[in-house]
Amino acid sequence: MTPDEARRRFAAARVARLATVSAAGQPHLVPVTFAVEGDTVYTAVDAKPKRSTSLRRLANVAANPRVALLADEYDDDWSRLWWVRADGVASVAAPDEPRAAHAAALLSVRYDRFDLRGPVMIVTVTRWSGWSASG
Amino acid sequence: MTPDEARRRFAAARVARLATVSAAGQPHLVPVTFAVEGDTVYTAVDAKPKRSTSLRRLANVAANPRVALLADEYDDDWSRLWWVRADGVASVAAPDEPRAAHAAALLSVRYDRFDLRGPVMIVTVTRWSGWSASG
Repeated sequence: MTPDEARRRFAAARVARLATVSAAGQPHLVPVTFAVEGDTVYTAVDAKPKRSTSLRRLANVAANPRVALLADEYDDDWSRLWWVRADGVASVAAPDEPRAAHAAALLSVRYDRFDLRGPVMIVTVTRWSGWSASG
Repeated sequence: MTPDEARRRFAAARVARLATVSAAGQPHLVPVTFAVEGDTVYTAVDAKPKRSTSLRRLANVAANPRVALLADEYDDDWSRLWWVRADGVASVAAPDEPRAAHAAALLSVRYDRFDLRGPVMIVTVTRWSGWSASG
């Protein structure tokens, strides 16, 4: 799959999974809602913020900004499987920063009930990749 | 969500996402089919093995055995969201090891078209956790 096709599929997905890594090398995984603009992925906290998981990912990114995001489709008909991955570098915008307001605007277009609270994670994607069983 | 409930939901899911970490701290994410037995998760290579992604996760686990697995359900009705995570330590069994044959037997029960090729990743789960919007 070409990087452009991977980005297109990723941008259309409704949910992705965010992997961050602690200073000690422990991976952390959480599902995220998101919006894509060019080679940037914006994600906010969970729909119902969970303080512990929100803090974990923020602490991880402060220690190690390298992250990965994955969107995929599973079907028991394995000829329909596909996945797309965005590897990149994350930074965090506080709720009162213009970048956070921009992210909130993009996210509210994609998710009807979106109500942004807390900081926004901004991922600069360095590599789009993917795979599809149908080629 | 209690650890037992998280394990039950995880075990019933059809797909999970596996996060591994390279020696340099780069996270890698890939969807996996799997089977749960007690506090052990067995995963094989992709339905259609992709040599590059298979090698990446094996090299990562050799350098850093800490992994995370996530199963989740997304719905635009956010009252239906849930996710469950298994954090643990991974080892790899070669195709000719008895542990790999055991994994293949468990996986073939869950996935009709399962055809095990290559090594098996065996994750000893140290923590089951999860969250559900419906409480």
